[in-house]
Amino acid sequence: MRNFDQFSITEAVLERVANAPDARIREISEALVRHLHNFIREVRPTQAEWEKGIAFLTDTGHMCTGTRQEFILLSDTLGVSMLVDAINHDHQTAVTESTVLGPFYVEGPPEVACGTDISGHLEGEPMFVSGSVATLDGTPLANAIVDVWHSDVDGYYDVQHEENGLVARARLRTDDQGRFSFWSIKPAAYPIPHDGPVGKMLEAQGRHPWRPAHVHFMIEAPGHEKLVTHVFVAGDAYLDSDSVFGVKDSLIRDFTAHAQGVAPDGRVMDQPWCQLTYDFKLNPVSAAASQAA
Amino acid sequence: MRNFDQFSITEAVLERVANAPDARIREISEALVRHLHNFIREVRPTQAEWEKGIAFLTDTGHMCTGTRQEFILLSDTLGVSMLVDAINHDHQTAVTESTVLGPFYVEGPPEVACGTDISGHLEGEPMFVSGSVATLDGTPLANAIVDVWHSDVDGYYDVQHEENGLVARARLRTDDQGRFSFWSIKPAAYPIPHDGPVGKMLEAQGRHPWRPAHVHFMIEAPGHEKLVTHVFVAGDAYLDSDSVFGVKDSLIRDFTAHAQGVAPDGRVMDQPWCQLTYDFKLNPVSAAASQAA
Ligand SMILES: [Cu+2]
Ligand SMILES: [Fe+3]
Ligand SMILES: [Fe+3]
Repeated sequence: MRNFDQFSITEAVLERVANAPDARIREISEALVRHLHNFIREVRPTQAEWEKGIAFLTDTGHMCTGTRQEFILLSDTLGVSMLVDAINHDHQTAVTESTVLGPFYVEGPPEVACGTDISGHLEGEPMFVSGSVATLDGTPLANAIVDVWHSDVDGYYDVQHEENGLVARARLRTDDQGRFSFWSIKPAAYPIPHDGPVGKMLEAQGRHPWRPAHVHFMIEAPGHEKLVTHVFVAGDAYLDSDSVFGVKDSLIRDFTAHAQGVAPDGRVMDQPWCQLTYDFKLNPVSAAASQAA
Repeated sequence: MRNFDQFSITEAVLERVANAPDARIREISEALVRHLHNFIREVRPTQAEWEKGIAFLTDTGHMCTGTRQEFILLSDTLGVSMLVDAINHDHQTAVTESTVLGPFYVEGPPEVACGTDISGHLEGEPMFVSGSVATLDGTPLANAIVDVWHSDVDGYYDVQHEENGLVARARLRTDDQGRFSFWSIKPAAYPIPHDGPVGKMLEAQGRHPWRPAHVHFMIEAPGHEKLVTHVFVAGDAYLDSDSVFGVKDSLIRDFTAHAQGVAPDGRVMDQPWCQLTYDFKLNPVSAAASQAA
């Protein structure tokens, strides 16, 4: 095979990847080649534009470190992450909706007992978070793993200030009634990290990098699909223009303001604080399997 | 905008990038989003597959250094480089055909006089290369820049053994009659670097990484389109299965074998050597401009 023109080259590459021993890899490779080549034929990049594309991808890769995932940011800002999420979580039931993982999850976060204040050295408005984890029919799930992480009042995650260690981040376990709780500080809206290639892309596309304030949750219980989601702060200015398209109405809650006084867990508060409550419902694996079928 | 499903998410992202101030960036962004989302909707990746995709791109970025360009290898092996080449060089004339740049070009190669032996410390069959550079109608182009680079007998480029410095690589200038010449050693077929993510991809796709033996040329002359091409060794086993789809019949030449004796430039050869001759024709910029119109 030689002498390809702008149409026969696609056939040639498809013929080559048709030898993939694994059927799924073959399927993905073929679809990738078709859509990628159609994209190129549509936009007809100059050699200089192709070079810019190579440089953009290279810079994006070089920006990735143990605590910065620029390709996830790219996927998020191009709507790919939420599209993959929608494809995999098209529940027609009362199960809690999912949203993007984001680039700031840390494997194996610090395990703490329910009720712990995880805000460490951070200053901000105290926030009491409590809720429950149940299966689809409302049966509580005891001993479920509840990972939580959120930004500080300036909109930064702990891993963006590595020198300070992990904070505003924890792993909790639900009790016999499927309940959990913790103290922290109220998170702020924040721009996704935009000092890299993705930030340049957003600027070139005339877009802002902001996300509405939220608390991340990742919840796991045996026999259930892992839930990756956020709870957003009602009234946030960016709920309708989230830079990563992650907002769903069912995930918005009032972070109810309270004057100083006694909190639900008996803590005496000498300053105003806020309260978030959310009851999560997980999708049983059997339901997930029958959906996929 | 909130609560996106797997179709409305595409509309939402398109609406967002519609604000791009630059019309070309808007056009490219919109096409990228449409084709990327259609690709995702077609293959319906699981979350685990999406994670593998992110990891693949990240690894590809991390593999890129000053002397290793893994994203160019990815573009080459997916046929994108030759597609971009075809789009930009759809000449219906006698102009020399172009092919991929490849990842081994070095900016500002060592300038040498015509006739120089550029093989340095490398062992191999001596090769005498000569030829000419002319414009479309055959008028010689004097003082044209002729950059050349090729692999050693083991199929490696100088930059893959950084400790040895630049070799089998040079910048020449054509003389008054548009002629150039140099000595080196005959290059070998080689596998593209396949110890990285692209190598894993090729293996998963059931493909070999080999390229037929060739000498790279990049030729520039005022008033003409820059020519990026190779000349391939006739009879090579990989001419029909080049891993980057770069072969064109017009770029294949005999590297004629000669017994020991006197070479065309008077050099007395005490061992067998080979000879490559190629006459290049460049595309005048005016022709390029009228094609693009
Ligand atoms: Cu497409
Ligand atoms: Fe976040
Ligand atoms: Fe090469």
